[in-house]
Amino acid sequence: MFTVRTPRVVAARRLHRRRDRDETGRFLAEGPQAVREAFRAGVVTELFATADAAARHPEWSASLVDDAAMEALADTVQPQGLVAVCRQRDVPLEQALARKPRLVAVCVDIRDPGNAGTVLRTADAAGAKTVIFAGDTVDPYNGKAVRSSAGSLFHVDIVRARDTAATIATLQAAGLQVLAADGYGKSDLFDLSDLHRPTAWLFGSEAHGLPRDLAVDLRVRVPLYGGAESLNLAAAAAVCLYSSAKAMRSVE
Amino acid sequence: MFTVRTPRVVAARRLHRRRDRDETGRFLAEGPQAVREAFRAGVVTELFATADAAARHPEWSASLVDDAAMEALADTVQPQGLVAVCRQRDVPLEQALARKPRLVAVCVDIRDPGNAGTVLRTADAAGAKTVIFAGDTVDPYNGKAVRSSAGSLFHVDIVRARDTAATIATLQAAGLQVLAADGYGKSDLFDLSDLHRPTAWLFGSEAHGLPRDLAVDLRVRVPLYGGAESLNLAAAAAVCLYSSAKAMRSVE
Repeated sequence: MFTVRTPRVVAARRLHRRRDRDETGRFLAEGPQAVREAFRAGVVTELFATADAAARHPEWSASLVDDAAMEALADTVQPQGLVAVCRQRDVPLEQALARKPRLVAVCVDIRDPGNAGTVLRTADAAGAKTVIFAGDTVDPYNGKAVRSSAGSLFHVDIVRARDTAATIATLQAAGLQVLAADGYGKSDLFDLSDLHRPTAWLFGSEAHGLPRDLAVDLRVRVPLYGGAESLNLAAAAAVCLYSSAKAMRSVE
Repeated sequence: MFTVRTPRVVAARRLHRRRDRDETGRFLAEGPQAVREAFRAGVVTELFATADAAARHPEWSASLVDDAAMEALADTVQPQGLVAVCRQRDVPLEQALARKPRLVAVCVDIRDPGNAGTVLRTADAAGAKTVIFAGDTVDPYNGKAVRSSAGSLFHVDIVRARDTAATIATLQAAGLQVLAADGYGKSDLFDLSDLHRPTAWLFGSEAHGLPRDLAVDLRVRVPLYGGAESLNLAAAAAVCLYSSAKAMRSVE
């Protein structure tokens, strides 16, 4: 009953590699919170659990594995004995836009999986219904991105879009204003009067910012009142997305 | 001229340990940005540089060290050849309050140096003049906290205060309202009408939140509009501090 190297464990382990995730359309989610959200989203195809973890979660039927197999399956030091194989759940941009999201977050060339996952989590918290992983942004199903999203990967429409320029054009055609969060942007976030309008926010990498040549509607800076030269990505995204969320609610 | 284990290098290396920082009242700042800010703040007692780095920064006089000594002095993989020994610059709470700060951030029992440094950076960006490291919060001069602050350690009044309850009482006596950022708080941040008043924001650790028994004026939650169960600390602090900053400026 306890298995270390069954073919299914071996196949699941391979999902730590992007190539195998891309080929199979599967990914791994670990820990009780992520597994619970994955079940709610209806995307779990198999759950591996240690005997201890399975006993703590009788609500889930699991394939029992020993500690060595769990260690091989898990990406973290403390997986808490639960790793689920999940179906990838991204949708085409058109399908996400058909649901008429009023707030969209777009990660542009964000290579750090922790940062991308945090933007996803913050966007979900602020009420964004769609999060787009654009350009060279990290795979949303990367283990660290999944963890950093703290379950939000399972709450919103995830879109993967290689062509950032085309994505912006499609968002604008759907009636969203496209705002770029840019530390050097000409517009002060707190001077904007149109934040209640349907909006897509673009966030770039902390190291390189956003490409200069994107045809966005405005480049917007979060004002810096003290001596800091910049905000980190999570902080800037939170201020921008919540400013929109607040403005949208104040006109309802 | 190039030195590896001079007594000064050996003494500087010891500043990676908290005990030696506490005993000497010194700490290390590395990389060109932090060193520049440390010079501006007038707290550099000695600068160690590789020959390459010294050539890139002729404006600073440095003790030249070889790569091995630099590696020993630096906390990071890429110190860019610059490590400064700095005087600790924290001040008593009373001294900080004498400058009548209108926005104060208080880290309460934040053990993660990256998180504490990020709150410091965000507070500085939002215009806070004082940042308090209270209770069991990490040493503000911890290498990772210094790095995460991205220079902001040198911009604001830093206060270290072991007794969180006494700190809150002192802040209130100085006329500041004390708001606790709390995911389970009764008050919705966006319902508050008093954010223009002088305010101290308390932020707890992501894992454990704030102690329940603090006599704050209000416990305030950042509203969650989507499926996310919480925000990460950097995001929550950014939304709270910038909400205050915006409100304070709109009444000026």
